[in-house]
Amino acid sequence: MIVAMQEKATEEQIDAVIDAMTEAGVGVHRTTGATQTILAGVGPTATVDLSKFELLPGVEHVHRISSPYKLAGRGFRPEGTVIEFRNGVKLGGEQILAMAGPCSIENKAQIFETAARVKAAGGTFLRGGAFKPRSSPYAFQGLGIPGLELMREAADAHGLLVVSEVMEIAQIEPMLQLVDLFQVGARNMQNFNLLRELGQVDKPVLLKRGIAATIEELLLSSEYILSGGNYNVALCERGIRTYETATRNTMDISAIPVVKKLSHLPIVADPSHGTGRRDMVAPMAKASVAAGADAIIVEVHPNADKAASDAAQTLYLDQFDKLMAELRVIAAAVGRTL
Amino acid sequence: MIVAMQEKATEEQIDAVIDAMTEAGVGVHRTTGATQTILAGVGPTATVDLSKFELLPGVEHVHRISSPYKLAGRGFRPEGTVIEFRNGVKLGGEQILAMAGPCSIENKAQIFETAARVKAAGGTFLRGGAFKPRSSPYAFQGLGIPGLELMREAADAHGLLVVSEVMEIAQIEPMLQLVDLFQVGARNMQNFNLLRELGQVDKPVLLKRGIAATIEELLLSSEYILSGGNYNVALCERGIRTYETATRNTMDISAIPVVKKLSHLPIVADPSHGTGRRDMVAPMAKASVAAGADAIIVEVHPNADKAASDAAQTLYLDQFDKLMAELRVIAAAVGRTL
Amino acid sequence: MIVAMQEKATEEQIDAVIDAMTEAGVGVHRTTGATQTILAGVGPTATVDLSKFELLPGVEHVHRISSPYKLAGRGFRPEGTVIEFRNGVKLGGEQILAMAGPCSIENKAQIFETAARVKAAGGTFLRGGAFKPRSSPYAFQGLGIPGLELMREAADAHGLLVVSEVMEIAQIEPMLQLVDLFQVGARNMQNFNLLRELGQVDKPVLLKRGIAATIEELLLSSEYILSGGNYNVALCERGIRTYETATRNTMDISAIPVVKKLSHLPIVADPSHGTGRRDMVAPMAKASVAAGADAIIVEVHPNADKAASDAAQTLYLDQFDKLMAELRVIAAAVGRTL
Amino acid sequence: MIVAMQEKATEEQIDAVIDAMTEAGVGVHRTTGATQTILAGVGPTATVDLSKFELLPGVEHVHRISSPYKLAGRGFRPEGTVIEFRNGVKLGGEQILAMAGPCSIENKAQIFETAARVKAAGGTFLRGGAFKPRSSPYAFQGLGIPGLELMREAADAHGLLVVSEVMEIAQIEPMLQLVDLFQVGARNMQNFNLLRELGQVDKPVLLKRGIAATIEELLLSSEYILSGGNYNVALCERGIRTYETATRNTMDISAIPVVKKLSHLPIVADPSHGTGRRDMVAPMAKASVAAGADAIIVEVHPNADKAASDAAQTLYLDQFDKLMAELRVIAAAVGRTL
Repeated sequence: MIVAMQEKATEEQIDAVIDAMTEAGVGVHRTTGATQTILAGVGPTATVDLSKFELLPGVEHVHRISSPYKLAGRGFRPEGTVIEFRNGVKLGGEQILAMAGPCSIENKAQIFETAARVKAAGGTFLRGGAFKPRSSPYAFQGLGIPGLELMREAADAHGLLVVSEVMEIAQIEPMLQLVDLFQVGARNMQNFNLLRELGQVDKPVLLKRGIAATIEELLLSSEYILSGGNYNVALCERGIRTYETATRNTMDISAIPVVKKLSHLPIVADPSHGTGRRDMVAPMAKASVAAGADAIIVEVHPNADKAASDAAQTLYLDQFDKLMAELRVIAAAVGRTL
Repeated sequence: MIVAMQEKATEEQIDAVIDAMTEAGVGVHRTTGATQTILAGVGPTATVDLSKFELLPGVEHVHRISSPYKLAGRGFRPEGTVIEFRNGVKLGGEQILAMAGPCSIENKAQIFETAARVKAAGGTFLRGGAFKPRSSPYAFQGLGIPGLELMREAADAHGLLVVSEVMEIAQIEPMLQLVDLFQVGARNMQNFNLLRELGQVDKPVLLKRGIAATIEELLLSSEYILSGGNYNVALCERGIRTYETATRNTMDISAIPVVKKLSHLPIVADPSHGTGRRDMVAPMAKASVAAGADAIIVEVHPNADKAASDAAQTLYLDQFDKLMAELRVIAAAVGRTL
Repeated sequence: MIVAMQEKATEEQIDAVIDAMTEAGVGVHRTTGATQTILAGVGPTATVDLSKFELLPGVEHVHRISSPYKLAGRGFRPEGTVIEFRNGVKLGGEQILAMAGPCSIENKAQIFETAARVKAAGGTFLRGGAFKPRSSPYAFQGLGIPGLELMREAADAHGLLVVSEVMEIAQIEPMLQLVDLFQVGARNMQNFNLLRELGQVDKPVLLKRGIAATIEELLLSSEYILSGGNYNVALCERGIRTYETATRNTMDISAIPVVKKLSHLPIVADPSHGTGRRDMVAPMAKASVAAGADAIIVEVHPNADKAASDAAQTLYLDQFDKLMAELRVIAAAVGRTL
Repeated sequence: MIVAMQEKATEEQIDAVIDAMTEAGVGVHRTTGATQTILAGVGPTATVDLSKFELLPGVEHVHRISSPYKLAGRGFRPEGTVIEFRNGVKLGGEQILAMAGPCSIENKAQIFETAARVKAAGGTFLRGGAFKPRSSPYAFQGLGIPGLELMREAADAHGLLVVSEVMEIAQIEPMLQLVDLFQVGARNMQNFNLLRELGQVDKPVLLKRGIAATIEELLLSSEYILSGGNYNVALCERGIRTYETATRNTMDISAIPVVKKLSHLPIVADPSHGTGRRDMVAPMAKASVAAGADAIIVEVHPNADKAASDAAQTLYLDQFDKLMAELRVIAAAVGRTL
């Protein structure tokens, strides 16, 4: 950390800041310039609340020098993390994965038909929500564990893996045998108790970026899982909230190369939630793959217009077939497979 | 709801949209203009997912006409909600309330000294966090229920009410006898399961706006609590995320008069989280009262610089005394007391 | 336009609104529902200030139905606009164009070396700023018209076209013979007087999106140029301002397919300004092409680190060679050439 | 400036950075920590483009220590700037000023009636636009200089000062004798050529914050005027663009105390543009005064509903009377007059 003192800071003020830094366990190097004194703090600054120093008398600014996250940083595993699933499928490797399925699991016919088509098109994961938190209390709220059991059955029947959202600590246990990848939704990105529990679990986690979260905050959240010993974490860009209303969210495609640079964790793109519009899913999926995404996750439904939730952003199965064919060409153009 | 058809929409497309609306339980009135057909939908549209219609062939736009919330709307209780607490204190009435206390409960001396001073300055609520979700997994995480017990004791000793944050459903039960007002934090504003449970509880709830939540979404979240039968809900503006970095969040003071117009629920202002800076708390608290807030909630600490969390935004007790004196004058200027 | 009346609106209030609409030249169709009256306005509503109606007594909401722009709308030219330049190069057609050059024209050696390399790599346009508005008054401000003359010479020597930013009406005349494409910068996107003048000019215009502009506002700004009779307008996505600070701006890749859908104008992507970081230019350029961009415009410099402006986002010439080779493959993957 | 090197930076990389800093005219102090080397740069860093250093090999972060603005900084004139107008009225002093008038000057009757009422209510400035840049090319565009002459006449007849927006350099000269305060609109906040010209003029300037501008950028823009020798500059908060759509912009009330802290320039609040809604003007004006604004500027019109522009945010004259009475009480509550 760096503390820049005001030009008019007194020696007493400078000493008080040095004392406060020392008390916080930080070693201090002082540079006295012609007009300004600068205090460089070294040591365990990642755990120090820097804002505390901002308002000490005589302080102009406090800057964090080292990243506030450690295990998620690129330096921790420069070669990158590859998550291997029980059927040998790898996330973060040369192959780009496709995860697809309905927003909500609705019934057996729906999930089995979807599974067959996802597999046929080249997908590796079946996705689907069992617990649906909806912004309106008057809307469909999901099938729960029985829905997950249906999805597991459908996935197994077609050689697919299962990814589904966990919303509360109490759901981890019953979901453990039913999913291959726990998804943490955008609204839970800072549910630190849930993240901490997932750090104890021997199952990979897909952590979605909150709609108002910075990339740094996403990495800091992943640190909660990693620090518990679960290193199989992938991140997911799914759109952030901006002033633009033409799309439901603004998908931050640049987060893909930024995460690749700052972290070793695989990064997945969700163009369905990223745009909220079916007709934008294909161009944004292609853009994501071109920008370096390790996987895409999209909503598909045998009868997209009548999906129980998120209908507007859900692809028809034929559209998914076409998208997969297009993505395969883009993947090759960036030196990967799909 | 209104569906505006494209100028070139065919009769077939129009019929298909009418069918879809009817199927969703919506009555349809058709207006055929010279260039454009407009379909007005009437009936239970609050529960209909409008985006589903957006992508039907021939549709240009879909507009929601009625508010998606009902119980939270001004029309439901035009005279405004006044929440009365067991000691007769009222939130939403003529008196503006002050809620103050440390970010985290740390120990007995801290919370008792704070309680004494909050009461002396004219505060009515003692606030303090027992469960502290921190963005860094390496920071102080709170005292839990024993901390709350200390706060209850301190509040009772000084005739104050207690407000504290509930973070999980499992915490409701043990907190029930210890708090007078359940606070739902910004990160949990869309934790619908938690909200639904709080709708079953016979205790008022203070619902904070998420940092990326619109006012409409805040009202929709309150609907979850109200629809369970708990009508004692107050809302809280605590800053939203914008591109400006001079303050931690941008406190949306205009949310205060907007909420007053759209809803009957009391609105509380939190200038501590709203700005993140001690030196901005007083001007923003004054602005909030001038704009019509029913209460303010601020962080104070006997030794603000050494607070275990949120030190930078925490007022010294002397600063709180001064602020209360100033707010009293502003309150009078807007025809209220404090 | 649609005016939704409040449930409790009186007949008098409804009549007053109908009168106000009629006075504004709008024809009115009234739908009286069980609980709510809806007034559909038809006619020249694009020129009506709708907000005027928002606050009339008894009004709940006012919705615009038709787009506020006309000439820029897809419907005006469904087949899409293709801008043909004097050497036969086409913007908006099957070929994706590359525009490259320094942020600022600095001297003859710099611009000639750049031109040679841009041409060799397959670029069609040389870009470069002659007038540099800088946020700090203490920074380099550009060479002016003599700089443009150098760039014209360099472009002609290598068979390239020239694009450069016009900042004031007075610059149009002297620039007219020196550029093939007038660029309007993000800060001037709503300089309506400048746009109106460019509507009178027989030379194509590249209109950049303002950092806080919606796509609708961008289209509305283009309307100023189109309505003057200059139909050769291309739009440019160059990043919007969001709360994320990892990149200078957040490049809104989804604006590319959205513009394609709403408008017939070609769309160009600027990953240099979109990200502000050299190492993000290549992934974002690839993403833009995959999402459907008609051209990319990037900053390159023979000595990128010492560029007089925007050094951090400027590619080395070798990086540009490599990028062009990669983009060619992506272009093929989406069925186009480069 | 501070350059923090990566933990693995080599001595060669460190030397290269030191060379680059030296070449840029910056003196370097080196601190070699156990894990990380930090280079503190001292000297004329305000004029250095820091981003240039961000991408040098081995660099982790570059931090600006000193503010990029100088003349606008609080330190330059700690006692605060007070702008005195020719009739003795002072902006920035103990008295809070009210500036009011129509969005556009429409005709003699309108502007004279407005002037009489603004004066009677206690206003000191008549405001009104002569040149109206409208986002739609199909809307009313203003009366020009003849309109300004009308406003001057009306203001003189009632002892008011005149503030009006200048949009182009060419308008400065003809406006010079007609206005007492040049307003620079939000869209021109970064029109540096215009600002530079206004730096040469012997007349105060009111500089409005752009809708996507940070407070730092606003101060940097003011520096363009100040550095030309015109020290009579006031700033204006008028709302920023956020994701919230309940109000047209989000008025950043916290910008008022932040500007007071960072700068010596007076700060004016514009609740009309800040909210875009007539019914929000009064609460936000009160909040602004409570937060420390030196003046408010509001839109009023004898026939607000029929105003040629911005009707929805324009107060009726009776509403303005009432607002002034309320503001007078708030002003007293914060120790000022109005």
